[in-house]
Amino acid sequence: MKNNYVVIMAGGIGTRFWPFSRTNHPKQFLDILGNGKTLIQMTVERFQHICPIENIFVVTNTDYLFHVKTQLPQLADSQILLEPMMRNTAACIAYACYKIRKRTENANIVIAPADHVILKQDAFSEAISKAIWSVTNNDILLTLGITPTRPDTGYGYIQAEAETDSSIQKVKTFTEKPNLPLAIEFLESGDYLWNAGIFVWNVKAIIQAFEKYMPDMAELFAEAQLNFFTPNESQAIKTLYQQCHNISIDYAIMEKADNVFVLQCDLGWSDLGTWKSLYEFSPKNKDNNVLKGNIMTYETTNCVVRTPNDRLVVLQGLDNYIVVEHNNVLLVCQKDEEQRIKQILEEVNKSKGRQFS
Amino acid sequence: MKNNYVVIMAGGIGTRFWPFSRTNHPKQFLDILGNGKTLIQMTVERFQHICPIENIFVVTNTDYLFHVKTQLPQLADSQILLEPMMRNTAACIAYACYKIRKRTENANIVIAPADHVILKQDAFSEAISKAIWSVTNNDILLTLGITPTRPDTGYGYIQAEAETDSSIQKVKTFTEKPNLPLAIEFLESGDYLWNAGIFVWNVKAIIQAFEKYMPDMAELFAEAQLNFFTPNESQAIKTLYQQCHNISIDYAIMEKADNVFVLQCDLGWSDLGTWKSLYEFSPKNKDNNVLKGNIMTYETTNCVVRTPNDRLVVLQGLDNYIVVEHNNVLLVCQKDEEQRIKQILEEVNKSKGRQFS
Repeated sequence: MKNNYVVIMAGGIGTRFWPFSRTNHPKQFLDILGNGKTLIQMTVERFQHICPIENIFVVTNTDYLFHVKTQLPQLADSQILLEPMMRNTAACIAYACYKIRKRTENANIVIAPADHVILKQDAFSEAISKAIWSVTNNDILLTLGITPTRPDTGYGYIQAEAETDSSIQKVKTFTEKPNLPLAIEFLESGDYLWNAGIFVWNVKAIIQAFEKYMPDMAELFAEAQLNFFTPNESQAIKTLYQQCHNISIDYAIMEKADNVFVLQCDLGWSDLGTWKSLYEFSPKNKDNNVLKGNIMTYETTNCVVRTPNDRLVVLQGLDNYIVVEHNNVLLVCQKDEEQRIKQILEEVNKSKGRQFS
Repeated sequence: MKNNYVVIMAGGIGTRFWPFSRTNHPKQFLDILGNGKTLIQMTVERFQHICPIENIFVVTNTDYLFHVKTQLPQLADSQILLEPMMRNTAACIAYACYKIRKRTENANIVIAPADHVILKQDAFSEAISKAIWSVTNNDILLTLGITPTRPDTGYGYIQAEAETDSSIQKVKTFTEKPNLPLAIEFLESGDYLWNAGIFVWNVKAIIQAFEKYMPDMAELFAEAQLNFFTPNESQAIKTLYQQCHNISIDYAIMEKADNVFVLQCDLGWSDLGTWKSLYEFSPKNKDNNVLKGNIMTYETTNCVVRTPNDRLVVLQGLDNYIVVEHNNVLLVCQKDEEQRIKQILEEVNKSKGRQFS
């Protein structure tokens, strides 16, 4: 257990959850479910039996150091890895894994996003234990695959090779966000899984993969690691990040490597990527609404509403809408048009300024 | 001119303008048009060339004395008539007219609601002058009739007798809020006018009418007037109001009397009775929206939106809605369902309490 590490990726902005998620206060630092805990707090809790607390690393943007320290006071400063700029998941994972290797050469590492939810804690603990056990003596790149329950077009899909009975299967293909007919086909075929973006490997295997598929990045990090756990770390990372590729771990490695496996599991998982996914994930009232706030509804159905408790909200005649108010921004948007939120946010940024974005 | 009086009725609550209009801060004390002036301030201004300022009386509820004194500092306390309870327009008008008679036996009186708007000031001044001239030597009850521009089902209609060429015509019938087919018929017939609720008469004529059609009320006020302009006035009114009918001047007198006339005019008038009437009255943008606030719209048409300037409001995919936020209440309601607001407000009152109603 002392060789087990968890890396929590907490650098995202969660734009699609605007206006609840904001540039200066993204989704992972918010109590999205309204249960009194932020998503990153729930994520850390989820790993409490997997590794010692001092083996949990959080990678985040410099701007969010305050949120991490406030919400996770149990972490030492050296466990908070600060990224000087947004550089997608490959750089984030390389930074954490090279840093961990410097401390523990035979580490097993779980990589997990800070802003997902998992309802079935026991199944999750079991899956992670199994995954760690699998990678301890095998240089494989393991990803968690979720049994899909609907033809969701917002998720990535993993096709596993069907020949084996084991719950750990070799990955055949990755498919990013399919269109609806394809997603329906995937669901019906029975051999596709949702890509949860939760990875498990030993440090040797992932660094070998970086060396093979991202050699320039591997070289940069190998050089920089001399400075890890020293006062020069932050400066070294600053220099390094400027030269880093802005690429996801999926594109950079997972879709290329030939030692990628998937562990199929059923976790009650959601990436909570959008308001619609929060809606899908949440229990509904009799009118199929998901309401959080001081809300009265009339002829209002299939809506997700999140508003401050001190404000009375009365909705009449809305079907299939998102209604969110947070920190001086109110958004009313059709649920099926939620992909517009990203564009809207860009325009808000340009014309209304930072206090609203 | 010194015999001319204006009575501004400012006791209403404006429930249909909720949540902008609130029990403790009704519509007439709000800057509904967003031009920096409240409706009652605009109403007083409108009469500045009709009579001396000391002849303008405001009748309002005791609860609103603060608003009147703050917004109309030019009025002396004796010009503010306080009603101890809501008693509709008949009592309000009786109080003002009996009080005026005590000071000026041959007064001409204009009665006007505090919360209407009139765009054409010159036409209005001309109409009022003409009306006053007409009632100076004729004991008639004159009401202003507005040439209708659409089959509005929210207004009362006046049918005039067609035999005369004069712009002042005898009234044949009053019809309260017709249904749409009837309203269309009225509009097409050409001899119906909107009842603006603005009345002009000499004090003798109106008091004769009270004596004839509301004899018990006339008796009460005749008795009470001994106390008018004395320190006992407020106590006398308190006692009197408890015995007063709760009835409108239209039902109590106008629909019964046989000396009722209408002066047809075109004033750019609206009673601003509801959000829809504000919408109808206001200039629209290219998407036929009426927006007041810091608002961005996408695929949003035919809406009336009123929100605080310090809050960013983004609306997507709304057609024909009212969106209003004011003082910690947000309402989203279909424009054609605005009659629901009254019922909604009752439920808010019951279940959410006074700070929201």
